[in-house]
Amino acid sequence: MDYPAILEDIFREVRPCCARGRVATYIPELAAVPPDRFGMAVHTVDGAVYGVGECAERFSVQSISKVFTLTLAMQLADEALWQRVGREPSGNPFNSLVQLEVENGKPRNPFINAGALVVTDVILARLADAKHTVRDFVRRLCGVDDIDFDLAVAHSEQRTGHRNKAMAHFLKSFGNLDGAPEVVLDAYFHHCSLAMSCRELCTAALFLANGGVVPASGDRVLSASQAKYVNSLLLTCGTYDAVGDFAYRVGLPGKSGVGGGILAVMPKRFSVCVWSPGLDEHGNSLAGTLALELFTTKTGISIF
Amino acid sequence: MDYPAILEDIFREVRPCCARGRVATYIPELAAVPPDRFGMAVHTVDGAVYGVGECAERFSVQSISKVFTLTLAMQLADEALWQRVGREPSGNPFNSLVQLEVENGKPRNPFINAGALVVTDVILARLADAKHTVRDFVRRLCGVDDIDFDLAVAHSEQRTGHRNKAMAHFLKSFGNLDGAPEVVLDAYFHHCSLAMSCRELCTAALFLANGGVVPASGDRVLSASQAKYVNSLLLTCGTYDAVGDFAYRVGLPGKSGVGGGILAVMPKRFSVCVWSPGLDEHGNSLAGTLALELFTTKTGISIF
Amino acid sequence: MDYPAILEDIFREVRPCCARGRVATYIPELAAVPPDRFGMAVHTVDGAVYGVGECAERFSVQSISKVFTLTLAMQLADEALWQRVGREPSGNPFNSLVQLEVENGKPRNPFINAGALVVTDVILARLADAKHTVRDFVRRLCGVDDIDFDLAVAHSEQRTGHRNKAMAHFLKSFGNLDGAPEVVLDAYFHHCSLAMSCRELCTAALFLANGGVVPASGDRVLSASQAKYVNSLLLTCGTYDAVGDFAYRVGLPGKSGVGGGILAVMPKRFSVCVWSPGLDEHGNSLAGTLALELFTTKTGISIF
Amino acid sequence: MDYPAILEDIFREVRPCCARGRVATYIPELAAVPPDRFGMAVHTVDGAVYGVGECAERFSVQSISKVFTLTLAMQLADEALWQRVGREPSGNPFNSLVQLEVENGKPRNPFINAGALVVTDVILARLADAKHTVRDFVRRLCGVDDIDFDLAVAHSEQRTGHRNKAMAHFLKSFGNLDGAPEVVLDAYFHHCSLAMSCRELCTAALFLANGGVVPASGDRVLSASQAKYVNSLLLTCGTYDAVGDFAYRVGLPGKSGVGGGILAVMPKRFSVCVWSPGLDEHGNSLAGTLALELFTTKTGISIF
Repeated sequence: MDYPAILEDIFREVRPCCARGRVATYIPELAAVPPDRFGMAVHTVDGAVYGVGECAERFSVQSISKVFTLTLAMQLADEALWQRVGREPSGNPFNSLVQLEVENGKPRNPFINAGALVVTDVILARLADAKHTVRDFVRRLCGVDDIDFDLAVAHSEQRTGHRNKAMAHFLKSFGNLDGAPEVVLDAYFHHCSLAMSCRELCTAALFLANGGVVPASGDRVLSASQAKYVNSLLLTCGTYDAVGDFAYRVGLPGKSGVGGGILAVMPKRFSVCVWSPGLDEHGNSLAGTLALELFTTKTGISIF
Repeated sequence: MDYPAILEDIFREVRPCCARGRVATYIPELAAVPPDRFGMAVHTVDGAVYGVGECAERFSVQSISKVFTLTLAMQLADEALWQRVGREPSGNPFNSLVQLEVENGKPRNPFINAGALVVTDVILARLADAKHTVRDFVRRLCGVDDIDFDLAVAHSEQRTGHRNKAMAHFLKSFGNLDGAPEVVLDAYFHHCSLAMSCRELCTAALFLANGGVVPASGDRVLSASQAKYVNSLLLTCGTYDAVGDFAYRVGLPGKSGVGGGILAVMPKRFSVCVWSPGLDEHGNSLAGTLALELFTTKTGISIF
Repeated sequence: MDYPAILEDIFREVRPCCARGRVATYIPELAAVPPDRFGMAVHTVDGAVYGVGECAERFSVQSISKVFTLTLAMQLADEALWQRVGREPSGNPFNSLVQLEVENGKPRNPFINAGALVVTDVILARLADAKHTVRDFVRRLCGVDDIDFDLAVAHSEQRTGHRNKAMAHFLKSFGNLDGAPEVVLDAYFHHCSLAMSCRELCTAALFLANGGVVPASGDRVLSASQAKYVNSLLLTCGTYDAVGDFAYRVGLPGKSGVGGGILAVMPKRFSVCVWSPGLDEHGNSLAGTLALELFTTKTGISIF
Repeated sequence: MDYPAILEDIFREVRPCCARGRVATYIPELAAVPPDRFGMAVHTVDGAVYGVGECAERFSVQSISKVFTLTLAMQLADEALWQRVGREPSGNPFNSLVQLEVENGKPRNPFINAGALVVTDVILARLADAKHTVRDFVRRLCGVDDIDFDLAVAHSEQRTGHRNKAMAHFLKSFGNLDGAPEVVLDAYFHHCSLAMSCRELCTAALFLANGGVVPASGDRVLSASQAKYVNSLLLTCGTYDAVGDFAYRVGLPGKSGVGGGILAVMPKRFSVCVWSPGLDEHGNSLAGTLALELFTTKTGISIF
């Protein structure tokens, strides 16, 4: 497979579409990102890395962080976690409180915000310094030491994240948070503020394409069965209210963030990450989704 | 009308039922109230006051305070208020977030918790010391100087009121709170913690039976039209999810609280308040509802 | 009370507003009614009748028929009926299936369409010829022999009433219809198609203002308690999603229909009916609601 | 891969679990099926067929028929179809009317009942004899001439399928059915009543594992892109409210039916069908799901 050529083709085709998406504006730090950015990187399980465009530029990973907090929580408390979070697609906008009420405070899956708050709570209850453990976990997965939180982003989220705050208190009212809502939210907002590049993200997630083991080091992050589980959750729940559309068009398990990143995995083959800050109406990167669609079309590789 | 005899009859009939209700247990202060308490008082527009049982014993008024905060908010900002709160029955449990989501953050009416938070916010935005103004307003209506907040109750609510906190942040996320959620909640919890007796409550609400004017002093609290408005809201929205049942059985506009009080109004005739801490499955005082039902049956007076 | 002068005043004030409402268009028979019609009639419990405008012109009573089918069903099976229909306001649009699903097929009250279908089913299960018994019951209440169904209306409803059909099958799926959905719907559509004038409607409903007894004949239709019950249901559930607004503005128990009629009751005083085919956004007659509001303002009579 | 040995192992392991499921009882024909049946068959894209247990015994395919009606509708009207049906998981029980109401009559996906009714309507509008065309289409895919409807099943569904009838009328009320509800329902109930064996079903669906082409004949049923689409829909929407769970445990696109069958596809490799009439709490075959889970575990083949 000539990945470099394929990435170049995609870059050329997709770049003009970047302007059609709408950059998230709910906090100034995201609103200020130039909409014409585009980066993409692939990391194969046999160790090759390819990139194009701004693939080394860091951006706010936002909800993509949920892949890593989920992984950590599964390491710490796999069974206990699934007592408190479901694993079914939500069929509702990603921040809906309705479902939480109807289902008595058990979030549908770990990728909607309510579910990620419970995942964060699970980590907080088991680690002395959860925030930095999450950051260090990601650093270790990438082998990059200076990955860090963007504190300006984290503080902006703190100031404006009323809906997430409502969610945390609501979970607490159902007894599905052990920690104080304020503490859980603080950790959650920090995790979302991690700044990483496409290259770093696809390297960090490569264990998911490799049965739970980091190929370079041989370190086992999750069991093969757990890795398969995360991938199936990504496919059925990873892209908000556009899960079906993403599965059809891209055909890979993936996770998107409002910062414009999308991380996807082809089991046994590669991980791939794309970034373009303009979003479509579902909150997924518009040019990013298109790029991944072209990628699976051009390579002929998808899970379906 | 021989009110004393009627009240005595009701007292005798209803007292044995007090044990059948369940005292609210979500905060220790309410859980500790002896379930066999029963008091009832009537205040007629021509100035007579009748009472029976523990009619002079103070209890936690809880949601009954919403009658007084609504009145104050209507004095301060009648038009602006109704832009932000509806006036229709909710058809849902009193603390549901679902409806708020479906209706974009505009609470259905001022008597559900979400609506009362907006009412509190309206007051806070217009008064330097909202908490004490509300307390002093109630003191003045009763002509009783030592009515006050029960701070133990207010603090317990602060500690456990996660659902109300969720609601406040949710309202904020829709832009329907001007103040900080924490500040609005603090005032709200204090208002709910007011400790008053049946005698005091029916005296305080007598203006609603008298076209908006306090009979004793001639002070106008609301216009005749506003008083009629509050009464119609009490009838259609005042008793949580049991509005239809209460309208049928009692046939008076009324407001209940989880402290076990129910305050009701017969326009042009009287206000009446009953207290018994045991609640029915809708959160209304069980013996209290029964007592009011007997009262309208025995007097033959109801709005229907 | 100078009712004739008051009615004349209202007629003059309200007529210009008739054009602002929107006539129901879902069936051709209703769409063809001239929007400028306006009639109003009052019948006092001591026997006087007053009218203005097209108060003797017949129109399609539609949902107002639910007052009479409910009355008949209460005569036939009061207890059994309330096992199958609730008595709380719905807080949702009048033909919502959602609530029915959430509450396992028990309609919230007898005035939403689902509830009226169950009421119809209760009648059908107990009478050989339910359709004509309902018609004859209304004839007898009015003392008018030629009141009848408008078969063109009934057939149009049959053709287009897909949502009501969905509701009937849905109720059947929950086991809350004894009869075949088709048979229940046929009766229901016929009852709704009754053509009556304002004069006839207020005469027919006068027993509700008189403790359940027809004043002229002394015939008891319902017990005093049942009549009070119907009135409280009208107030809390009679005007679709505008119950609170209607209670505030008009302050009388009332029932509206999409044909533009509104029937209301002042206990111990009178029944009143108004007709103007233009509807407001809630499906209530726009000029009709306004006329009733003026009526209670000018007479100073309302239940609040 | 030693499929025969794997199937034998599964048969031995799973058979004792058959008794733990609950056979569907809503119609007598399904209730009468012995709960201890178990059959399983695999058809590889290179033409080998393997089977175990009652793999040649026919059962009621029920919702599995939706795979074939969807395929036919995509052949007839791919674009027009997706205007009227979504492609996202529902996140709700499979026969919920709520979602339909909230989303204005557009079913979430073609595999929930409402969606399948629209699919049926699309076929009916384009074919003179839709019912038999569907049957003949399935016959041709299998190369088996005597596959047919079980008329006793179809008639029982007609008699008891009130919820599906409600759905059809509801879709009609939203203008999302061209045909008469009764006609669409008749075709729908017939399609669901098809009686087929595991061997026949996996043969019929083999084109989905082979890029849209029947391997034996070379006939193209769908384009490669359409086949991929159907597979992604099966994965995200094919197993009612247990999509996430099925994706995790089995890791294959699949469709279940209340008759106890489950049909699944491994792209580029094989189709597989299992049958055991006892259902789990989601309405999926209990032993069938277990058998497929063992199959992907033992073969090490899944899409994740």
